[in-house]
Amino acid sequence: MTDETGERIVVPAREGRTICLARGERLRIVDVEGGQVADTFAYCDGDASEYLSMEHTRVVVSRLLPRVGEAFVTNLRRPILTFEQDASPGVHDTLLAACDPARYVALGVEGWHASCKENVQRAMGELGYEGVTVPQPVNFFMNTPLLDSEGTIGWRPSPTQAGDYVQLRAELPCIVCVSACPQDQNPINGDAGPTSLALERWPARAPRPAGVLA
Amino acid sequence: MTDETGERIVVPAREGRTICLARGERLRIVDVEGGQVADTFAYCDGDASEYLSMEHTRVVVSRLLPRVGEAFVTNLRRPILTFEQDASPGVHDTLLAACDPARYVALGVEGWHASCKENVQRAMGELGYEGVTVPQPVNFFMNTPLLDSEGTIGWRPSPTQAGDYVQLRAELPCIVCVSACPQDQNPINGDAGPTSLALERWPARAPRPAGVLA
Repeated sequence: MTDETGERIVVPAREGRTICLARGERLRIVDVEGGQVADTFAYCDGDASEYLSMEHTRVVVSRLLPRVGEAFVTNLRRPILTFEQDASPGVHDTLLAACDPARYVALGVEGWHASCKENVQRAMGELGYEGVTVPQPVNFFMNTPLLDSEGTIGWRPSPTQAGDYVQLRAELPCIVCVSACPQDQNPINGDAGPTSLALERWPARAPRPAGVLA
Repeated sequence: MTDETGERIVVPAREGRTICLARGERLRIVDVEGGQVADTFAYCDGDASEYLSMEHTRVVVSRLLPRVGEAFVTNLRRPILTFEQDASPGVHDTLLAACDPARYVALGVEGWHASCKENVQRAMGELGYEGVTVPQPVNFFMNTPLLDSEGTIGWRPSPTQAGDYVQLRAELPCIVCVSACPQDQNPINGDAGPTSLALERWPARAPRPAGVLA
């Protein structure tokens, strides 16, 4: 499900997709219909044991979220993605684990429920990375503010509008994996529930000259 | 360096130590001289791929830190340690990565510097767990408040006094690893710099009856 030639990959509601970025390439993560959380992960291409790490990023930027112009770093503290543009209300979560089967059991769901953890492991598995670590994601567009001095977390609908996006620039060759969060047991994905996202290589790669083999 | 018979293990300044807990056993982490950060990790005994995870704990308790009476959970969302007592000013960090070699390079240190990451891997290695994942620790006694609505992190001296402690109860058989953080490039360990901690099994195990083999 990776992008080899095109500029736009749809991430269907409740599913996950990957995109491989060369150093310097840009990615836009677009909230197609609005109000949808994008659980976002980035692994070093060729070595998935190094990945975007929020706990290390918080130390490096000395803040919960990088500002536009600052970079997310890996668990080895190397810049991997620069936060280049934020064309959204600027509400993102950087604290909370991806949803997983145990989360839905705890929420009272009977039987299987799609989850971001399984989405990531399936999408990375399709690239040959079996059983990857699923670190804490960057949850773009997720509205879970700290409500008080105790750090109580609120679970609120995402405020993004259709077409809102964030733009990231790759500082290392990497695989970005985005899950259109399937959470429908609390309000984070809005009244409409889970909807789709899109991954856009930006600007698009130049088309290959005629006659040149890939 | 694990405890088999005694009740108290000293964690020397800048080093790490482990203690194995049976389900229901209590551990006190004591700041012996005051002002010392305790980077604390917990791994399931027998399977170090399951460990205390702050990103999952934040979701389960819907707060940055469990209250006294609530539990820290693992990356599989199982309770592993209940936060049973807080006999300290109650200032703890639950957001920041353990210090590691790259951290000290970034801070301008030349040559090797002790780090919590290496302390954990060495202490766990002595128990046969080589190359364990070093997840985000619970940094007891660490004073790194969120200063504003952007979540800017302050780096301040620990306010603990000599003898302050936290008490944890094991909900799973586990190995708790504590590093007396060697950070001396910022003020988090106070004017005195890194000092020692102690791990106390509480209450102590009853002495073995005479004549009974271990």
